[in-house]
Amino acid sequence: MHTVIFAEPDFARMEKQFRTNLINALSGFKSVNLVGTANAQGMTNLAVFSQIFHIGANPPLIGMLVRPDSVPRHTLSNLLETGFYTFNNILPEFYQAAHQTSARYAVSEFEACGFTPEFSQHHPAPYVRESSVKIGLRFVEKHELAINGTIMVIGSVVEIICPEGCVAEDGYLDIEKAGSITCSGLDSYHTTQQLARLPYAKP
Amino acid sequence: MHTVIFAEPDFARMEKQFRTNLINALSGFKSVNLVGTANAQGMTNLAVFSQIFHIGANPPLIGMLVRPDSVPRHTLSNLLETGFYTFNNILPEFYQAAHQTSARYAVSEFEACGFTPEFSQHHPAPYVRESSVKIGLRFVEKHELAINGTIMVIGSVVEIICPEGCVAEDGYLDIEKAGSITCSGLDSYHTTQQLARLPYAKP
Repeated sequence: MHTVIFAEPDFARMEKQFRTNLINALSGFKSVNLVGTANAQGMTNLAVFSQIFHIGANPPLIGMLVRPDSVPRHTLSNLLETGFYTFNNILPEFYQAAHQTSARYAVSEFEACGFTPEFSQHHPAPYVRESSVKIGLRFVEKHELAINGTIMVIGSVVEIICPEGCVAEDGYLDIEKAGSITCSGLDSYHTTQQLARLPYAKP
Repeated sequence: MHTVIFAEPDFARMEKQFRTNLINALSGFKSVNLVGTANAQGMTNLAVFSQIFHIGANPPLIGMLVRPDSVPRHTLSNLLETGFYTFNNILPEFYQAAHQTSARYAVSEFEACGFTPEFSQHHPAPYVRESSVKIGLRFVEKHELAINGTIMVIGSVVEIICPEGCVAEDGYLDIEKAGSITCSGLDSYHTTQQLARLPYAKP
């Protein structure tokens, strides 16, 4: 197999968009979610994020990176203001509308992109009615990464809403069965096909 | 659609493995990679990690979470000792062997699980010859997350090796074409099927 090699000195010389596309896709498929927030006045906001990662199960914690200079900056100010936010999975039926939430709108992206806000009794942040896996989070910790100013936000899970029949007896949540898609880079969306679940590895 | 709801008080009451499986799968499909390291004596180590995420493109930075109490702790000590490590994508042909690197071995997981170490002139960490997308990283920053003691390691990309024909004209790296798979939860592996790349969103 013929290969292409990029070494460190190449990165600074690359055209900006080329570098952005290359590096964003590099580390693998990503956990893409619609992040729902509201400000203290109840104005809702919805934005697609893919820098989301599992941190720990006990307590249940999920991390998210927010670029201070990126479009969906209302997400950060809202979640800091109210203390709550939601993650909502993306289904093949509406991935184009989900991607569209990254545009700059003067009105709520729920309205602009055709999503329906849905509220629970457990916290004030809006869920996306159209999603099948919905996670309510309480803001717990924030780090600024010294090297590029990115903000890492850590949330504690306060609620999980998912389809009946997608939680296995051992707790495994079958997000493929729930319809979740994944993304790669800045703009590529993918469905999945399970190979297998493997048993706990022993020597 | 009938739904299942878990609220915060439920988590503490859950059986440990049930909670671990549920929460690990919750936030979406993950960037799963084999992480290659060597200690100062050249003894290699290989371990599968899925808490990996894009941080920024300029400079090119990738984050990884390491649980201090987890099996592949040699990864952390090795990369701190030498300053370098590699990410190697996982192909459908060897995902079972990749998963097997999470078992505790007295010898190198390269040998125990049937992988071939491969070295470059740019840094001392071992790549996986069998992978098609290989990333060399230099350790640059470490954060301990106060809330659960997880270690976040940030690496700066020093080298990218990928198949010819997988880099689009605009820089997009087609990891699906390169054969990369994704994972969900602790033990489920999935291939992908691209829906589309979407244009930059404008209102």
